Amino acid sequence: MIMNMADMILDKIDEKKNATVMGLDPRFESIPRFITEPIKKQHTGLRAVACSYLEFNKRIIDLASGIIGIVKPQSAFYEQAGIEGIKALIETINYAKSKGMIVIVDGKRNDIGTTAQAYSGGYLAENSISGISERAFNADLLTVTPYLGSDGIKPFIEDCKKSNKGIFVLVKTSNRSSGELQDLMAGGKKVYEIVAENVAELGKGLEGERGYSPVGAVVGATYPKEAEVLRRIMPKNIFLVPGFGAQGGTAKDILPCFNKDGYGAIINSSRGLIFPYKDDSVSESEFEKAIIGAATKMKNEITAALKEKGICPW
Amino acid sequence: MIMNMADMILDKIDEKKNATVMGLDPRFESIPRFITEPIKKQHTGLRAVACSYLEFNKRIIDLASGIIGIVKPQSAFYEQAGIEGIKALIETINYAKSKGMIVIVDGKRNDIGTTAQAYSGGYLAENSISGISERAFNADLLTVTPYLGSDGIKPFIEDCKKSNKGIFVLVKTSNRSSGELQDLMAGGKKVYEIVAENVAELGKGLEGERGYSPVGAVVGATYPKEAEVLRRIMPKNIFLVPGFGAQGGTAKDILPCFNKDGYGAIINSSRGLIFPYKDDSVSESEFEKAIIGAATKMKNEITAALKEKGICPW
Repeated sequence: MIMNMADMILDKIDEKKNATVMGLDPRFESIPRFITEPIKKQHTGLRAVACSYLEFNKRIIDLASGIIGIVKPQSAFYEQAGIEGIKALIETINYAKSKGMIVIVDGKRNDIGTTAQAYSGGYLAENSISGISERAFNADLLTVTPYLGSDGIKPFIEDCKKSNKGIFVLVKTSNRSSGELQDLMAGGKKVYEIVAENVAELGKGLEGERGYSPVGAVVGATYPKEAEVLRRIMPKNIFLVPGFGAQGGTAKDILPCFNKDGYGAIINSSRGLIFPYKDDSVSESEFEKAIIGAATKMKNEITAALKEKGICPW
Repeated sequence: MIMNMADMILDKIDEKKNATVMGLDPRFESIPRFITEPIKKQHTGLRAVACSYLEFNKRIIDLASGIIGIVKPQSAFYEQAGIEGIKALIETINYAKSKGMIVIVDGKRNDIGTTAQAYSGGYLAENSISGISERAFNADLLTVTPYLGSDGIKPFIEDCKKSNKGIFVLVKTSNRSSGELQDLMAGGKKVYEIVAENVAELGKGLEGERGYSPVGAVVGATYPKEAEVLRRIMPKNIFLVPGFGAQGGTAKDILPCFNKDGYGAIINSSRGLIFPYKDDSVSESEFEKAIIGAATKMKNEITAALKEKGICPW
């Protein structure tokens, strides 16, 4: 039997004693030369870029998968490298899953009705194209943007039910201008609070054995006060928390995203975890040390903050 | 010199005397058997699906490109077919452009900062990956979702300036639940009106010789009253209008999307234009007649409505 995706996430957190998500946001110019140079001798253009992304991802997955259980490739960087880049994304997803990791595709997809079904079929579920069972992307979870209302979310939720997958709906994002729309006050509530109420409602009845729903929410680490309110509105929804580290969020800032049971949030860092070395001249041994060091440091910081608050489950 | 994308759209409308956009939203089960059967003999799985999409698109582009000047492939359906599907999307974009058509990729992408730059570099602009000039998708325009605020729109606008491309920001969408978020009343204004004000502001200074900005807005045909208000808020922004035909919008409903000069709106139909025949058993000659018939009918309906209002520019 396939498990509820929320249970799978909590079990993975327990296994690693770590609520970290490693963001796989590759940048060609930041990948160590010891990886890119041999590839550039064999390939050119976007193919060289995509091969470098895949090789880089495999190496950091190999190094970090003992410490971190969840990865989040950012689709934009792979799409930027065209067909070859998207191939690298698919192979990254499969590689991470072969190492036992849970994979969130950060695509912020959004559309309605049968078009949303097509995204969901492509990224999450069994493919729904008539007579075809081949999977296109095979991710575990996908980020979804809520501007279109529940017409734009329900088709994904159907597939979460059917195929034990999950989504994270953007609620309060970590960027500076997120308030322009999300903080508007409508009928005594902020827009993001209203979206949060919808997410809580849409996620009801899908909870796994451990009480959480596979319909989650994106809540930025850079807005801890807002997170406190959102934690109350969405008690059973897992928060995917961007903005830690490079974007300014600290271990203290992310605490309001957790429930009293010490679960309910997974914390993403991208640059901080995948580029923790000086520049692309880094040696292979320095690179390996830096990746393991950064993953360990983030794990320890989150654990220390949870322990200080007295809610660390391990 | 490359022209401003808004000027290109208006010139294309004049050339065809037609403000229609043909939505390329392929469904495997709706494609005529005379197209799919020979492909199924050569290929299986998602490759058969993707080859059918491309062959189908080429045929309808060949048939309709004398009547319609703009196409809008819906990215979801191509992504659903994985790598092969995305290859079909890229080849469809290139084929439509080789026939002189303007191509809007309907991807509703949204992200911030350098991630938004990556989408923009992938779909619209010269690729910004260091040292690589190869283009990934080479679309003319892209749809963009505004939930993240102006951080999520400005990077695309930079590329509109630099590379003479364009975007359509989702403002008021055609679906039933669009109001859940978009119609919320905040400080005496609807959320979609506030988004519209931002779009008008962000598009300022980019206008072409004919007075329109390449920063456009998605405004659904199913909400004519809202369109009237939005036309006033965004006088210089081109509206991409979905919801005509199959979704219930009539020629009368779309009139408020136009300015008094008879420009300012392009009207999309997908199912109505690409599947205007009974089912997949349609013969080749019936298919050709149906595609040309549907394109001509929609052109004539829009022209008649514009003439009745006395604003038809041709």
